[in-house]
Amino acid sequence: MTTLTGKNSIAGNWSAEGTQTFTSVDPRTRQPGKVQFHNATASEIDRAVSAAAEAFRQTRHYPASRLADFLDTAAAEIEKLRDELIEMADYETALGSTRLTGELTRTTNQLKAFGNLLREGSYVEAIIDTALPDRQPLPRPDIRRMLIPIGPVAVFSASNFPFAFATAGGDTASAFAAGCPVIVKGHPGHPATTELFTAALNNAINISGFPAGFFSMVQGDSVEVGQTLVKHPLLEAVGFTGSLRGGRAIYDTAAQRPRPIPVYAEMGSINPVVIMPGSVEARGDALIDALAASATLGAGQYCTNPGLVLMLDSPDTDKFIQRYTEAMTAREPQVMLNAAIESGLARTVEQTVRSGGVDLLAGGETVTGGGFCYAHTVMKADSAAFRSNPQLHHEHFGPVTLFVTCASLDDMRLTLESIEGQLTGTIHGEDDEIEDARPLLQALTERVGRLIWNGVPTGVEVSHAQQHGGPYPATTAPWSTSVGMMAIKRFMRPVAYQNIPPALLPDALKNENPLNILRIVNSEYTREPIKP
Amino acid sequence: MTTLTGKNSIAGNWSAEGTQTFTSVDPRTRQPGKVQFHNATASEIDRAVSAAAEAFRQTRHYPASRLADFLDTAAAEIEKLRDELIEMADYETALGSTRLTGELTRTTNQLKAFGNLLREGSYVEAIIDTALPDRQPLPRPDIRRMLIPIGPVAVFSASNFPFAFATAGGDTASAFAAGCPVIVKGHPGHPATTELFTAALNNAINISGFPAGFFSMVQGDSVEVGQTLVKHPLLEAVGFTGSLRGGRAIYDTAAQRPRPIPVYAEMGSINPVVIMPGSVEARGDALIDALAASATLGAGQYCTNPGLVLMLDSPDTDKFIQRYTEAMTAREPQVMLNAAIESGLARTVEQTVRSGGVDLLAGGETVTGGGFCYAHTVMKADSAAFRSNPQLHHEHFGPVTLFVTCASLDDMRLTLESIEGQLTGTIHGEDDEIEDARPLLQALTERVGRLIWNGVPTGVEVSHAQQHGGPYPATTAPWSTSVGMMAIKRFMRPVAYQNIPPALLPDALKNENPLNILRIVNSEYTREPIKP
Repeated sequence: MTTLTGKNSIAGNWSAEGTQTFTSVDPRTRQPGKVQFHNATASEIDRAVSAAAEAFRQTRHYPASRLADFLDTAAAEIEKLRDELIEMADYETALGSTRLTGELTRTTNQLKAFGNLLREGSYVEAIIDTALPDRQPLPRPDIRRMLIPIGPVAVFSASNFPFAFATAGGDTASAFAAGCPVIVKGHPGHPATTELFTAALNNAINISGFPAGFFSMVQGDSVEVGQTLVKHPLLEAVGFTGSLRGGRAIYDTAAQRPRPIPVYAEMGSINPVVIMPGSVEARGDALIDALAASATLGAGQYCTNPGLVLMLDSPDTDKFIQRYTEAMTAREPQVMLNAAIESGLARTVEQTVRSGGVDLLAGGETVTGGGFCYAHTVMKADSAAFRSNPQLHHEHFGPVTLFVTCASLDDMRLTLESIEGQLTGTIHGEDDEIEDARPLLQALTERVGRLIWNGVPTGVEVSHAQQHGGPYPATTAPWSTSVGMMAIKRFMRPVAYQNIPPALLPDALKNENPLNILRIVNSEYTREPIKP
Repeated sequence: MTTLTGKNSIAGNWSAEGTQTFTSVDPRTRQPGKVQFHNATASEIDRAVSAAAEAFRQTRHYPASRLADFLDTAAAEIEKLRDELIEMADYETALGSTRLTGELTRTTNQLKAFGNLLREGSYVEAIIDTALPDRQPLPRPDIRRMLIPIGPVAVFSASNFPFAFATAGGDTASAFAAGCPVIVKGHPGHPATTELFTAALNNAINISGFPAGFFSMVQGDSVEVGQTLVKHPLLEAVGFTGSLRGGRAIYDTAAQRPRPIPVYAEMGSINPVVIMPGSVEARGDALIDALAASATLGAGQYCTNPGLVLMLDSPDTDKFIQRYTEAMTAREPQVMLNAAIESGLARTVEQTVRSGGVDLLAGGETVTGGGFCYAHTVMKADSAAFRSNPQLHHEHFGPVTLFVTCASLDDMRLTLESIEGQLTGTIHGEDDEIEDARPLLQALTERVGRLIWNGVPTGVEVSHAQQHGGPYPATTAPWSTSVGMMAIKRFMRPVAYQNIPPALLPDALKNENPLNILRIVNSEYTREPIKP
């Protein structure tokens, strides 16, 4: 087993200058661990970002193939620690080895998938308009445009995905793929897991001959660590996965900098699910099983957890909700990540129940006597109550489902139109309900990042076409995704080269097209070289 | 001639509820015009944005071809007013009919160019990953992703481009092309020109059968009008071209909304120009002519005005600067746009001269006795003074050139590295200086949106490959461009469709590829249909 240091990693060097420390907490026993982790100091954070800026002077010139090889090496170094990582993360998060095994595979596959994107190479969006020296009234210059990396990126780890949205998760992988150095702010819920990943990434950097400043990791259980990092003048962007409150605080800090920088914060969602009456009739029981499984997956601690279910008011719906409530109650409550999530959920559900117009059908209380745990909870309101009560629109981060009954499909559409930005929106319907569902799908389209038909929102495929994002408050950057190959675009920006001599052009923009990438040349998509 | 109303246009209806008014001012005589223009009230602004949101329910479904036809119609309606527009804009801005004639052609060509982009259709970035039902351990769902329009956009007109960056300029054209309704905040410097464009756009909307709320225009010479617009809850994004102070105020307001929205503010730049010693020797006189012409074009009121020139300290450079100063003095100063720009320039130059370490070689004073006018101004500092004095990094918006002499090429690189984000960076060099210039080009690449070799930064081609943007403070959104075809992306966001029935899929994502667009299908770029 790796011996934990409890230190921060500043450009490859372990460092613990600070005196404030914290420990892991075993969610199953609520007992603190033995290793003291040191909050990073302002000086350590400054060294980390400065080293990242210095490293960027080199890495910004690295060809995509070299970055791709690095990502493969990082994946391999992580795989070497697979058993240790799963054991440690299970101790720190209680997510269970089955889930964590899958998540680790997803994490290393994600690194390798970005490598493949880089080797194909067209992600730089090369666009070339060649000169038209004889154009009247003025000649057209030669203009060539491509995406370049933006520079040092801060990544805030999520608590609920200690692998896939954490130290070497999607934000880090996509920033590395872009050629950007990363400073990870480890989540205080799993500092030991963070340190193990850090060791793997530092190994990959050494093996690859990358500058040590390409990656740093700072620990911290205080707001100050994150704030100091976001305020650093040499930082260029922030990736964040977590709560609305935390994400908004970071967004505000970044917006108030003398030089504002973009914040790509994914802040969760209530993920509305519409169930059309035909599906209740055709496959109600299967739907109850699937939905309850999705709502309780990982103790409901998913940003894509289906927290809101809209159905037409009817006796069949009443029976469906009753059976769903029984199914939720029958499932064993799972241990949650930490004390803050447990108490936050208890507080939010209590506020919701007290806010009026909502019936508590099951749960609504902390499960005492063991680890952090909250009872599977089902609530119900009618559409009028939902539309008039903002509290019912809040995310209940955990195994909580709110049913909203609607008088008609039109009432359901109006109810959907009252909802804020969401990561996902789902409709369950039968083939003969497709046209009825069209206006509902449309209402969802206007406020979500991903639409799902006859599925559950949990389970976010890492692929080219994935869109994990959405209008605020789902994210602070609706034009971007934090999952899938397009996530790389967050950490790049376009530059145009006007009449630049061939010797000074990047390979992606050279006439010969040495990278054989797809380009837009004089408005045509082509991989052909340009004849001078 | 069109009879001016002095009113706002709210979803096609002229409206003047407010009591605060302002007039055009003839920059050549400093005399106010006769027509009173009414500041929009909060109620008018609310009606405009609400109508835009209502219109968007229809326009978001319009096929690209219909939007393209509308853009062509808008261009044609504007062309019908060509002579009147040029006459009116010349009266309000004193930019001269030659410049305005070219700018109007650019403006209508820009609308038509977006139409061509829409007809080609691939701009929606369709990406399709088809289902893998047999994949282990879990099947892959069918996921299809494309860009959709975001909704109502506010566009703040610039003073210095009354056509190309104003009512029907690049921001409006790209938002319309995306399918987004637009509310233009007219610049108070040219309200009559704004009203003429508004009439043309309203005609185009009527002819095309678009909902009237697709376009509104609000006038205003107060900060309140813009602030009220940016705060409107139904607004989705802002396009702005203007000063750093104005752009930052709008950015801050948008960031502080309960629901923040993106602000695409282009705020100007000092546009560094490097002149290598070989070019001084090889073509010094031609360079002086070209540079002085660029620096004084439109009275220097270009966001791409070359305000900073870096040269190696030498007797040849001294002679070059002396001849450049003579050339600037010999050129007739031109009338500037308005009193605020004239007084702002006088104040900034005075602060710069007073800040120390800089020699005033020519100009530095208002030209009195006629219109708004400022003398062609040349200043000089050494690199040490420039690097240590932040005032020398400020934009002097007008016909002002600051020379900075450097001790060596390395000193020049360090000096470039001290500069903030810029729209453009230019190098003049001879063929045998390309390798010497490489580190300088690299330093510029890290801080500009467009690199230019042996040219001038003024003159921004509207093409696919154009990038008019750059790191803050050049813009608030370095990942975007406000000129060229890619400007459309600012007003779109991605949505993923997971297992959505074919009948509910947009055309761009259907198996048959009825739009014949280029798509990424299972990681391959192709226009081929998908075989089910």
